[in-house]
Amino acid sequence: MTTHMLLVAHGSRREKSNHEVKILSSKLGFLATDYASVSYAFLELAEPGIPDALRKLIHSGAEKIVVVPYFLAAGRHVVDDIPAEVESVRKDHPDVKIVTVPHLGSMDGIPRLLLQLAGLAH
Amino acid sequence: MTTHMLLVAHGSRREKSNHEVKILSSKLGFLATDYASVSYAFLELAEPGIPDALRKLIHSGAEKIVVVPYFLAAGRHVVDDIPAEVESVRKDHPDVKIVTVPHLGSMDGIPRLLLQLAGLAH
Repeated sequence: MTTHMLLVAHGSRREKSNHEVKILSSKLGFLATDYASVSYAFLELAEPGIPDALRKLIHSGAEKIVVVPYFLAAGRHVVDDIPAEVESVRKDHPDVKIVTVPHLGSMDGIPRLLLQLAGLAH
Repeated sequence: MTTHMLLVAHGSRREKSNHEVKILSSKLGFLATDYASVSYAFLELAEPGIPDALRKLIHSGAEKIVVVPYFLAAGRHVVDDIPAEVESVRKDHPDVKIVTVPHLGSMDGIPRLLLQLAGLAH
């Protein structure tokens, strides 16, 4: 089964910020050797949107897509908006497995990373 | 010198999301043994705001405060808004050292954490 990863970020009016997401997606592409591809999508303010990115992967033959919410807080974007956008595509492609994992902020590694970050001020 | 950590998050209309930040701040409090305290502030939509949180720390005797932006993207919040709010307090307290470290999304550890997260879908 060809599995693809889709990194979903909020999107910003600031192009440099969206560019950071694209760079991150490229970095992940090198690391993620178990995936056929790593691409990105934005919830708002930047392109591509989530449905467009999912459809593009499906049309390229993706059988499984792992949606990774690049969000820290389980706000309405994570709880309502991303699932709704994913669902809008899933219903037309019941044969494709689309799995959304928890948001980044839920990871156990976050506190240690913040501590390391704060340490930069020493 | 007594050093305190202030975790700064965006803030959400969803109380559960703000609560996650408070829980994270408590976890950091246990881990961050080099700091006199770890507290939190929100840029918008929740209390306390950044200036209030900074002033509270200063009034309690903080000599150094490390501001940790709990943000993934260097959007305008990170680039303009947080520095402006920090500056609004710093100018009245030149004797207190307030250092803002880079935002979480700039950390090298993020791609590996995302890969681990995506792996939950396997």
